Order: sequence, then C-alpha cells, then structure tokens
Amino acid sequence: MRFSQNPFRTIKTVSSELVSKNARLLTQAGFIHQEVAGVYTFLPIGLRVLNKIEQIIREEMDKVAVEILMTSLAPQEVWQTTGRIATVDVLMKTVGANPLSQAKNDTSYVLGSTHEEVVTPLVQSFTRSYKELPIGVYQIQTKFRNEPRAKSGLLRCREFRMKDAYSFHTSEADLKKYYEVMKQAYTNIFERVGLGKDTIIALASGGDFTPDFSHEFQTICEAGEDIIFRARSANINFNREVTPSQAPALNDQDEEMKPREDVFGENIIGVEELAAFLHIPVAKTTKTILFENEKGEVIAAAVRGGYDINEEKLKKIAACKELKLAAAETVKRVTHAEVGYAGVLNLPPEVKVFFDESTSNRKNFECGANKTHYHSININFDRDIPMPEKFYDFKVAQEGDIYPETSEVYEVVKACEVGNIFPLNTKFSKAFGFHYTDEQGQEKPVYMGCYGIGPSRLVGVLVERFADANGMVWPESVAPFQVHLIDINAHDKGQAIYDALKQQGIEVLWDDRDVRAGEKFADADLIGIPHRLVVSAKTGEKVEWKRRTENQAQIVDVDAAIKQILGNS
Amino acid sequence: MRFSQNPFRTIKTVSSELVSKNARLLTQAGFIHQEVAGVYTFLPIGLRVLNKIEQIIREEMDKVAVEILMTSLAPQEVWQTTGRIATVDVLMKTVGANPLSQAKNDTSYVLGSTHEEVVTPLVQSFTRSYKELPIGVYQIQTKFRNEPRAKSGLLRCREFRMKDAYSFHTSEADLKKYYEVMKQAYTNIFERVGLGKDTIIALASGGDFTPDFSHEFQTICEAGEDIIFRARSANINFNREVTPSQAPALNDQDEEMKPREDVFGENIIGVEELAAFLHIPVAKTTKTILFENEKGEVIAAAVRGGYDINEEKLKKIAACKELKLAAAETVKRVTHAEVGYAGVLNLPPEVKVFFDESTSNRKNFECGANKTHYHSININFDRDIPMPEKFYDFKVAQEGDIYPETSEVYEVVKACEVGNIFPLNTKFSKAFGFHYTDEQGQEKPVYMGCYGIGPSRLVGVLVERFADANGMVWPESVAPFQVHLIDINAHDKGQAIYDALKQQGIEVLWDDRDVRAGEKFADADLIGIPHRLVVSAKTGEKVEWKRRTENQAQIVDVDAAIKQILGNS
Repeated sequence: MRFSQNPFRTIKTVSSELVSKNARLLTQAGFIHQEVAGVYTFLPIGLRVLNKIEQIIREEMDKVAVEILMTSLAPQEVWQTTGRIATVDVLMKTVGANPLSQAKNDTSYVLGSTHEEVVTPLVQSFTRSYKELPIGVYQIQTKFRNEPRAKSGLLRCREFRMKDAYSFHTSEADLKKYYEVMKQAYTNIFERVGLGKDTIIALASGGDFTPDFSHEFQTICEAGEDIIFRARSANINFNREVTPSQAPALNDQDEEMKPREDVFGENIIGVEELAAFLHIPVAKTTKTILFENEKGEVIAAAVRGGYDINEEKLKKIAACKELKLAAAETVKRVTHAEVGYAGVLNLPPEVKVFFDESTSNRKNFECGANKTHYHSININFDRDIPMPEKFYDFKVAQEGDIYPETSEVYEVVKACEVGNIFPLNTKFSKAFGFHYTDEQGQEKPVYMGCYGIGPSRLVGVLVERFADANGMVWPESVAPFQVHLIDINAHDKGQAIYDALKQQGIEVLWDDRDVRAGEKFADADLIGIPHRLVVSAKTGEKVEWKRRTENQAQIVDVDAAIKQILGNS
Repeated sequence: MRFSQNPFRTIKTVSSELVSKNARLLTQAGFIHQEVAGVYTFLPIGLRVLNKIEQIIREEMDKVAVEILMTSLAPQEVWQTTGRIATVDVLMKTVGANPLSQAKNDTSYVLGSTHEEVVTPLVQSFTRSYKELPIGVYQIQTKFRNEPRAKSGLLRCREFRMKDAYSFHTSEADLKKYYEVMKQAYTNIFERVGLGKDTIIALASGGDFTPDFSHEFQTICEAGEDIIFRARSANINFNREVTPSQAPALNDQDEEMKPREDVFGENIIGVEELAAFLHIPVAKTTKTILFENEKGEVIAAAVRGGYDINEEKLKKIAACKELKLAAAETVKRVTHAEVGYAGVLNLPPEVKVFFDESTSNRKNFECGANKTHYHSININFDRDIPMPEKFYDFKVAQEGDIYPETSEVYEVVKACEVGNIFPLNTKFSKAFGFHYTDEQGQEKPVYMGCYGIGPSRLVGVLVERFADANGMVWPESVAPFQVHLIDINAHDKGQAIYDALKQQGIEVLWDDRDVRAGEKFADADLIGIPHRLVVSAKTGEKVEWKRRTENQAQIVDVDAAIKQILGNS
C-alpha cells in the first residue's frame, strides 16, 4: 500500500478522552477511530492487523470445529428460557429508533453479548442421537456489551470482535477430552500471534454452584484489569476471584495470653484507624461482616483485619444462592449495637458464624464487642470463644498470601484476559431440554463447553505488551505489513523496491509522501512494522535495513534485505 | 469437507413459516437457519457461499476504494445532525436489556442501517485539502433494519450483510467520474457472481428535491419486489417509482362531442364500478384526488381511471415537501360534496389543479360532479373546462405504458435490487459542515456518493434465479464446493478421489454417509454443487461425472473429470 493512498494518516494529537496506551497509539497511527466511548472503527492498517489475527484463529479453530455465522439479533424468548435476560448486566436489546420504526415492527431483539442462547437450540434442532456427537462449532463475529466504563481502548469495548466456540458432548468425560484439545488450540493461537511467552493459563470461576474451574488465558501486562496469583513451583495460576489463599503468619505474636478487655473507642470503625488507636498491628484486628442469605438467615463472616471478603467464595461455603449485607436493623437485632461494632463474641445461636483461616493462629486478637463504641481486645480462641470446628478460606486473596498446597508465597501479576474456556456442563442443555438418545435408547442431557477469544482485544493487548517509547512494535505474524519502505527524495528507487518486494509476495507500506525524512522515520516507529527499508541518494544500489526492535540500521543489498525479511515472516 | 463432519445436515421438512423459495431451499439444504423472522444464521455450507461472494466484492472494491470496518453502534448525535434519526423508518437503537444493564450505562446507541452518519464525520476528521481528495472507502459489515415484513428469506432481512462504499470529491464532475468507475466495478461483480446476464441497471429516485437519478442494479427474477420498466430500443430501464410514463391512446374514441350530463349514481365511487354503471370504458373515467401540502394548500390531481397517483412525482411537480390526502372536511369545503365525488369542474380558485397526461386526448370523458352521488359525463376540455396549460406525468406507471422519448411500449419485469449507487452530492457534507480548501484557499463543500451491495441478499437471489425443480444450482464462482463426491458403498474409492481432488486444490463435499444412494443423489441436487462425481463398484477405475445443469452423467477417467472441473472453475 502506498501511504499517499491511505486517507487515514497518522495524526499529531489525539483526544484527551483516550487515556489508555493502546487507544492513544492506535489512534495516532491511524489504526482505529473512536466513534463513541468503547466503540472503535478499524481503519485500513488496523483492519489488516485484525484480519491477520482472525485468520490465525480461524486456521486453528478449523482443526477442531466448524465455522458458522450466527446473528447478533436474537428473540427475547431464548434469553427468557435461561433467565439470563434479567441477569446479564451488560445485555442490550433493540427498539425502533423513532415512532415510524416502532409502528412498523414493535418487537425488541436481544443484541448478542454471547451466544449460548442461540447456539444451543440451533444445534439441538439438528441433533438427536449419540451418533451425531460430539459437535464443535465456532464463529467470528461482532459482539455487544453495555459496559459501564469503557476507558481501556480495545481492551474493554461496547462493540468488539469475538471468536466464540461451543461444543456438545455425550458425557462430561468427552467434554473434558475436547476441552484439552481446545486448550491446546488456544495455546497455539497465542503462540502464533506472538503472545505465547507472556500468556499463562489461570483458573477462574466455573460459575455458581460448581466446584469446576474455567480457564482463562491471561497475558501478563500492566494494563490488564485482572490480578493473577501464581504458584510457580506448582505450575498453577489463579484469577484472584478463586485464589485459594492462606494469610501469612503474624510476625509479632505475644508469648502469653493477656486479659480480655472491652475498650471504649467512640466512632472508631475502620481497621486501620482502630489498629492505630489500640496500638496493635492491623493483622490483629478482626473484621466481622453480617450478611443475610436468600432465606433471611443471618451469617457472620470474620476475616483478619486488612482482608476483604470474597462473597463468591463465601456463598459456596455457606451454600447459599444470594448474600447481601445485613440491613442496619438486622445488625442491631443480633448484636444489640450500631453498625460497625459487630464481633464474633456472644452472637445469638441463630447466627451462623464462619471464620476465615486468617483469623486463626493469632494470640490476643481484637474483635468487635457487639456493643456500640466498644472493641474487645486480647481475645483468644478456647478461652474467650470456642475454637471453631473449621476455618475456611473466603477472603479476597492479596499480595503476600500463600498457596496452601505448596506453602509458597504467590507471585502476583496484572494480566489481561485474552481467552477463556468454560465447561458449561448441562447448564444450557437443561434449560433448553436438549437431550440425546444414547446407545441404549435412553434420553440423556448433552454436555457443553464454550470457548472465547476477542480478536479486537488482542490488537490492544499486543500494543500494550510490545509498544516502546517510540510507538508500536508488531510481531511478524500479525503486523499490518512486513516492510515499511521509506524513500528520501528518491521516488524512482522507492517504486523499484516497492515493485520488487511485492513481486516476492512481501506486504509493503511505502511512505511515498513528500514530507521531511524525520517525519517519515517517526511515523515508521509509531506504526511499528517489523522491517524498515530506506532508499535515498546516499544508499546507491543498496538499501538501509533496520528491524523495528533494533536501533542500528545496516546498508545491505536489496536481495539480502529480502532474504532477511522472508526468513522472518 | 466430509458430509459426516458437518453437524448441520439437509433436512426433510422446513417450517411452513418459511414461504420464500430461497429460504425454503437454503434451510432444507442446511445453508441457513432462521433465528427469528428475517434473521438468519449462516451454517457452514451457506457461509462458504457468502464468503465467496464477499471475496469477489472485496477484490473488485479494492481496485477503487480502501477497506475499513465501521461499527454498528453509533452515537445518536450524528443521526440527529442529519435529522434522519426521526425519519428513517427502519432505524433501530439499543437500550439496556434489563434494569442492571440500564443502571450500568443508560446511553442508547443507533444501530447502523447505513453509514453516512458515521463515515462523513470520520473522513471529515482526516481531510482538509483538495490534495487529499478524492477518497473512496468501503466496508463489508452486518446491518440492521427494522423491516415490517420479513417473508422473503434472504431478500429482505432485519439483519444482513452489506458492502457499503462512500466516496468524497472536490466537485460534482469528479463525483460523476468516480461514479462511472464504481458502476463498472459493480458490473464486474455481478458478472463474476454469475448474475451478469440477468442484471440490468435501472434509474431510480435520487431522493427528494433532486432531478438526479440513482442507479439500481436489478436482477430480473420472479421473486423480486421491484417492477422495472424497460425501453429496450433506448437501452434504458426505470424503477417503477420514476418511470416517465405516457398512457396508451384510447381505442374507442367518439367521433363527436356529446352533451354534458350529471348522472345520479348513488354511492358509486370506484372507477370500475362507475364505468360498469355508466357503460363506458374505465379509461374514460377520471380519478380526482385532493391533497393538502405542508402549507395547508389544497391540490387536486386528476388521472385517467385505472391509474394511481405517484405522490413522489406529484410532489416534485407541485414543488411541495409533503402531500397528504385531504381530510374529509376539506373535501367537503372545496367540493361541497361527500368524499368520492370530487371532480375537476368548478373547483374554487384556491385549489391548484394538476392534470396527468393520461387525462388528455379523450373525448366525452367522465369526472366527479362535486355533488354527492353525481358523476359528470361527456366532459370535454375547452368546452366544459378550460384546456390545461400543461399536462404532467404523475401517475404510477403500469403495464402497457409508453416511454415518451421513443414512443415504445415498455417491457415490464419483476426484479430484485442487488446493488445501488447513489449520488449524495452535498446532502451529508452540508449537514456535517464538511468542507475542503481548494487551490485558491477557498472553503468548498465536499461532494459524496454512496454505493451498496448486499452479499447475503445475493445468496438468496442466486437461489431464486437458478434453482430448478430438484434444488439449487450454484454458479461455479460462488458454489460452496466445486465437487459433490458420492461414494456408493465404496468408502476407499471415495477417500482416494477425495484426496486426489484436494491435492489439486479442488473444494470437495464428500458425502461419506451410510445412507441410500437415492438420498445422496437427492441431496446433491438440492445442494446444487456444479460437478457431481460418483464412485461405486460399478465405476471400476473410472468415475461418473455429471454437471448439476445437465441430466446425463458420463463415465470418465478421474484425470479427465479433474480437467473438466478445473477448466470450469
């Protein structure tokens, strides 16, 4: 492509509304254009990157599934069948944009944020027998999500490209087998797009009421919105939400138990403030939170000060569907105190108390006195309250926590989720009554898995991961072009090399503009194509060749440059 | 592809909800699946056809424009800028599908039915000078339209694939030059997808208040929703909406003027009923319709009985923005009669009267008497009413009408619009204030054109045009596969030929199922792949080769079959 023939050129300044590195660089380089927050047009050069990523995904998916193209619009009924029309908090639907349109057709359609509701009845309508299973289908399509914040460029969009795959099986065992095949396909994809070294598989929630994990492909990068806990010796990674965590031991344990006291501390509620007031470490305070579950039962959950409660973990432990913070009147009823002074002492027997393991192994700890403005100190299990039968893990894991299996301290990294594979089991097949007939003629529910990758997000992740101070740096496999050709007042030479490279099947962006050499060099760095070739009066019959990742250019024969380029692409 | 590995097989019966030929055949053959009326998933084989069509379009577009990918979501503001948010009667917008989603983000976005509102400010933001023009951009993308009826399968969808291109120019002359280039690109595309012979260019409306035509590419086919009037000797075609029409001369003209009479005909209103009652031909009756324009002025329009009024034509003639049928009280006020008896006689001077040319050259014609239940007969211009200064053409053209330029009777055909090119001129650039600076430093408005083709509609049109009694018949260039291979109890032979064909780069669908030969043959006809190859014990070392378009199969060497196939693809 000739630079002069691309109407969407590099620009000098980008809107201050664009705060993420990937949005700023991609906009400046003319790869994308924001239409409205979280909604980006792909311009010619950006579209080339997106297409290359999608083609790599397609090639790997074609080995394990068959491609279809589902629709963005779906009838509301299928989303009502699963109940998710009311619970998916990013779901959008359509309405006529004006009275004329509404009069023509007043139906509302759900706009797909994911496609379980469409693909399950679709495959169901073609499938009767075990002989037809397993089935794997995928699509590469535009998705819509009503994201509340959309400030991360291509990392979190309201409209984005997605590859979603779905599989259907006769048994959980067959699903698990396929799941591993898909995991390998994903590994291949991230390897091929240049993120293999930086992408790890993390265990994540498998959804409500299942002990199963899903698996997230997480690319380690500062812009990532996920926190991953890595136990390197065990070769295992967890998304924070499901990280099994053991709090580190306390450093400054007392030798002896001290006498219990109830201390007056007016309006002192936060653990930091309280620890300072009591002259004890935060870790010796105890945070006791009261919840109500869906049956109206009150649950008390105690964690070491400095930790938060992971409600998803707690829900599974307490075996309840919903948990909400107890209302002020409930707190008063069970603790006889204002909100903020709850503790694990003397709670009425109808309150179920759960202790996080972080509250164990502490001598002389603090907890709320269940008395307004009072805090109990020098509390000890067995003496002041009975030793709990069991300690649980329902805290939000944090830096410094320990992986219980190996006792190693987690390495904690920020990462961006680039893929996700998920064992759905029978959740959707049961909702739609999707059964198959087995060898014995028995009806059995179909097992399902789903598998997602966001190609447009990957564009953003590649920028975040590889950009340097001068601009973007594209891996060869997904670069918009292999060669950025610059001619300095030497259009004829430029044309000759442009033609020669194209003859070799090499993709070239030729900066044929009449602008300063410095501007051309800066744009080449910004755009980030792997190989830069420069011709000028100075280069004679030769060409100046430089990789984007290196600082030093070399003067080489054209043939030698072509050899280098082809050897690397 | 092996038939057994496609989960979406041919089916025996399709829903009676699917009434169009294309939807029925494509569904039966496993090409598409209706999710909700007018919304179709593309299944693996159908997606191959769609992709081939899109690739042909892409190749031809790449010669004249640069590809981008705009978004479906657009801010409402840009649609407010042009005012079309209120007037495009198929426009949809988004809302959160549930209260959780609405709470997260309560913005509504317009869902793109076309992209002038997105592309104009986009290109504007990159363009300042005449040096940067012309610019041509295109995208291939999913579009959304809130169609009231969606009963024509892929011909009229609520969600569909579209290639839309937009061009930007310094002058109308430059736009016109590019417009012809695009017209040729479109001609190439329809030629390549196999519709060249059946696709004609018809003139259509260029929009309100412009004498310019747009150009529609219309494929002649019975399922088409458009009526095209062809003047073959002048090599010109019109969409009915803009057809210049001259009514045929009356056969049975009287020799002499007869005395005018007012005839009592109680409640006789329709021209057919009236003609029968009066024992005159329908063509001697006159239909006088009263309208009110946007200023409240009353307009009377008279056409020969048997014709309807084309309000778009009349609006341009009467130079008004809006026309609506006059309210009953208005009719009473100006005619002093109930609705149904209006005529061109003795109307008050404030009523502007327009005569269609079909009312001229008639002796002793009828018209409403402006008196309830009365009809005036034997009316003649000059004697009973003044000869109009001018006769116009504002009727809906109909079969039998004459092209005024050549006086030939139009050939009238049904056709399906497969493409459309449209000179937008400065309509959108003015709305967005999109100016460029010319050589003299003067600000001038940019001229625009837009150019659309619906790839998914083309899939449907190809079925409608080429299907025969046994199923679909795909042109070689867009067929999902080149070869449909059938083995009859000869899997080994099948495998060998399958491998040999693939080695040659030939796309093969191999029906490797264990079903009756008859079922395989029927499915081959239904699916409509150009070449059918059969191997069985009977074929020995040879293969039975048959084209989908022929009835007779031939036993040939495998090499000869390959030669035939490659020679045709």
